Amino acid sequence: MKKLNQIHLQILQMIFEVYDKHFLKDSTFKSEHFLIPLIELIETDLDAYVSRDPAAKNHRYVLDSYLTFKAVLWYRVAHTLLNLDYSYITVARMISENAKSFSGIEIHPAAKFGIGLVIDHGTGIVIGETSIVGKYAYLLNGVVLGANGIADNRAGHQRHPIIGDFFECAANVKILGAVSIGNHVKVGADCRIDYDLDDNSISYCKAIVETYRDYDSVKIDSISALTKEQIDIEGRNLKVIDECIWVNDNHEEIILPFQQTNLGGITVLLKGLITKFNWVNVILKRKGRVMVKASFSL
Amino acid sequence: MKKLNQIHLQILQMIFEVYDKHFLKDSTFKSEHFLIPLIELIETDLDAYVSRDPAAKNHRYVLDSYLTFKAVLWYRVAHTLLNLDYSYITVARMISENAKSFSGIEIHPAAKFGIGLVIDHGTGIVIGETSIVGKYAYLLNGVVLGANGIADNRAGHQRHPIIGDFFECAANVKILGAVSIGNHVKVGADCRIDYDLDDNSISYCKAIVETYRDYDSVKIDSISALTKEQIDIEGRNLKVIDECIWVNDNHEEIILPFQQTNLGGITVLLKGLITKFNWVNVILKRKGRVMVKASFSL
Amino acid sequence: MKKLNQIHLQILQMIFEVYDKHFLKDSTFKSEHFLIPLIELIETDLDAYVSRDPAAKNHRYVLDSYLTFKAVLWYRVAHTLLNLDYSYITVARMISENAKSFSGIEIHPAAKFGIGLVIDHGTGIVIGETSIVGKYAYLLNGVVLGANGIADNRAGHQRHPIIGDFFECAANVKILGAVSIGNHVKVGADCRIDYDLDDNSISYCKAIVETYRDYDSVKIDSISALTKEQIDIEGRNLKVIDECIWVNDNHEEIILPFQQTNLGGITVLLKGLITKFNWVNVILKRKGRVMVKASFSL
Repeated sequence: MKKLNQIHLQILQMIFEVYDKHFLKDSTFKSEHFLIPLIELIETDLDAYVSRDPAAKNHRYVLDSYLTFKAVLWYRVAHTLLNLDYSYITVARMISENAKSFSGIEIHPAAKFGIGLVIDHGTGIVIGETSIVGKYAYLLNGVVLGANGIADNRAGHQRHPIIGDFFECAANVKILGAVSIGNHVKVGADCRIDYDLDDNSISYCKAIVETYRDYDSVKIDSISALTKEQIDIEGRNLKVIDECIWVNDNHEEIILPFQQTNLGGITVLLKGLITKFNWVNVILKRKGRVMVKASFSL
Repeated sequence: MKKLNQIHLQILQMIFEVYDKHFLKDSTFKSEHFLIPLIELIETDLDAYVSRDPAAKNHRYVLDSYLTFKAVLWYRVAHTLLNLDYSYITVARMISENAKSFSGIEIHPAAKFGIGLVIDHGTGIVIGETSIVGKYAYLLNGVVLGANGIADNRAGHQRHPIIGDFFECAANVKILGAVSIGNHVKVGADCRIDYDLDDNSISYCKAIVETYRDYDSVKIDSISALTKEQIDIEGRNLKVIDECIWVNDNHEEIILPFQQTNLGGITVLLKGLITKFNWVNVILKRKGRVMVKASFSL
Repeated sequence: MKKLNQIHLQILQMIFEVYDKHFLKDSTFKSEHFLIPLIELIETDLDAYVSRDPAAKNHRYVLDSYLTFKAVLWYRVAHTLLNLDYSYITVARMISENAKSFSGIEIHPAAKFGIGLVIDHGTGIVIGETSIVGKYAYLLNGVVLGANGIADNRAGHQRHPIIGDFFECAANVKILGAVSIGNHVKVGADCRIDYDLDDNSISYCKAIVETYRDYDSVKIDSISALTKEQIDIEGRNLKVIDECIWVNDNHEEIILPFQQTNLGGITVLLKGLITKFNWVNVILKRKGRVMVKASFSL
């Protein structure tokens, strides 16, 4: 066997750990012909980790403490076994399932990845049986390369994505069905894609988030009704958008006077919805009753 | 060492389990100076579990059977080691990775959490290296406090969120980048947030879900065309929204007669889209051909 | 004990593995009365796996190598213990937590599932304590049957979904609160549902994904301004939608001449947003400055 450095030896030790746990005693697996290309392939992954993950300080640190790297290594072993002889499918699947058990990463051993694969965080990743991904892919946690249906999918044909080189994929992305994804494609968090993407594409998923502010007790000294649709809170002119209700101290609704009304320092609840236009919808409550709903520009 | 109760002793035993699994034999780690504050810190987490999770019946039950609590405890040990001396980074990372292995929860040991942390369910949680979270946080499964990019992020600066006290965070929330989140903030399921949030904010992610009903075979005895835009199905007056096609038994389209048409009990496929206005869009098919598209109010 | 076949014996062995790991030595658990219904129940799950998952080649393959099936089996054991006597709650929870540890699947032992449960991939699944699901459910990874709130939920009442038979549920679906879901319901990936669904419903979550193409260096030989709103790039007539800026070699903005302008083969950055109408919004930059924004039909 050719001269191996310390890094190669530690990779070799991790490969032998897979063998031991799965009772793989066949001398073929320990031959130079089998091991050298496997070690060199895994070294491309390790190099990619160190150069591309800011938290990956050096080769030894990744080898010692990265479960995602260990999961990639176990996948490389399982896939290489399967390439040698498809009758190893059950043990290859066991390796895959055990890797999922310690890492949360599920890669079907028949799935194909080019050199230099990096998986970052990784929990929840599912890579389907007929997926094909090029070199230097970088996958975050929760990425699914899956099929289109739920139950009762048909086997025996291409049902997962085919993806080019330099694929970057953020958390919780799903790419579903036998679609074609080009080279140098980046997909942002939470995208679900069931169509082809050209080379150099960048996809984003819009997050439709609304944020309210809850001010539990805002002290308001004066609310004035200027017109039916305009009120004034502490000198700030508000347009009433919904309803405008005054209540007395017994929580009974009273007729809105449409004139200066000094509230004498009551404490009210004010809820504001921040819209994309920077308008605030205001609801004023007193002791659980809505007093004023209004909106004003920030 | 000061008097420890049964709960303290069980926490101590769980800390020693972390030591044993990671060959931490240094007497410093077993000193009162090191252990007492650590046990007291972990007790704040345990108290928070029992008071805030409805399924957490009592302290002993959580200690005996909660993997999420065990993951929090392992994080507390790893973080305390790192605080003592940053050269423990590899073993701290191993503790973090092993905790992820049994719990699905990944907390970088350098991330900072105040007292009283509760993690509920937890699988898929990823807490980045420079995250800072205040006291009494409550996190559900799949929460990511992450960086903005995918691969090739820059190390050595604040790249994760800084979050105040009493943070409540529902499943699959992502908070990305070095944003500032105030105190008493609640974030609903599936939100992705890459901007600051004020104190007392509540954020929701809108779910854009459409629901169809599939009636495989609805027996319809009579369809009558009243006008070009009105039809009557079994006495129910429908407004045609799209097209209205009659076919004969040879699947040939026939001219719509716009008069009473008795279908004599044919079986048709009826698909209805339930809209937010409680209208149903109806498509009637017979032997694969669209017969009527119409809508009616529920 | 009645005649058991090889499949039954392997199931029995897997049940005994649960007993051994949790020190369950009571002879009740090894009685025919307890074991036969449990084995028969688990056999319905195994049959469903083999008939419904395209990757599940045969019974033995699933028994040997499927962690999701093993997680279902462990849930069946834990739930049956709890049915026998609720005082087994701590050990039932330990079984549930240990199953989560090796599979990423968390099913509260008190949750109820009918016969023929299939869990595919499974990582990130969370099934709450009071969930009730009918027969022949098929769940993908990340499915949450959860409660509505985050922290401080109230215990002791129905707070999770009640679901009918033949439920099919794709990845990352959340069904939240004590809602009623009918029979034969399918829910597509990423749906979040907190309301009832009728029999035969199909729900989809719209993915709001935008895709840009990045051409890092597109060589453009001629850009001509025809009018204020029309430009010509390499013979292609474009309508200007936003702004149209020419800069000289010193990056200074110059007045747009609105006449033939030969760029002499400069290299520009071109970003295109592919809209659903197959229009491209084009931004031309030169050395970091926006030169032209325009749109054209594909």
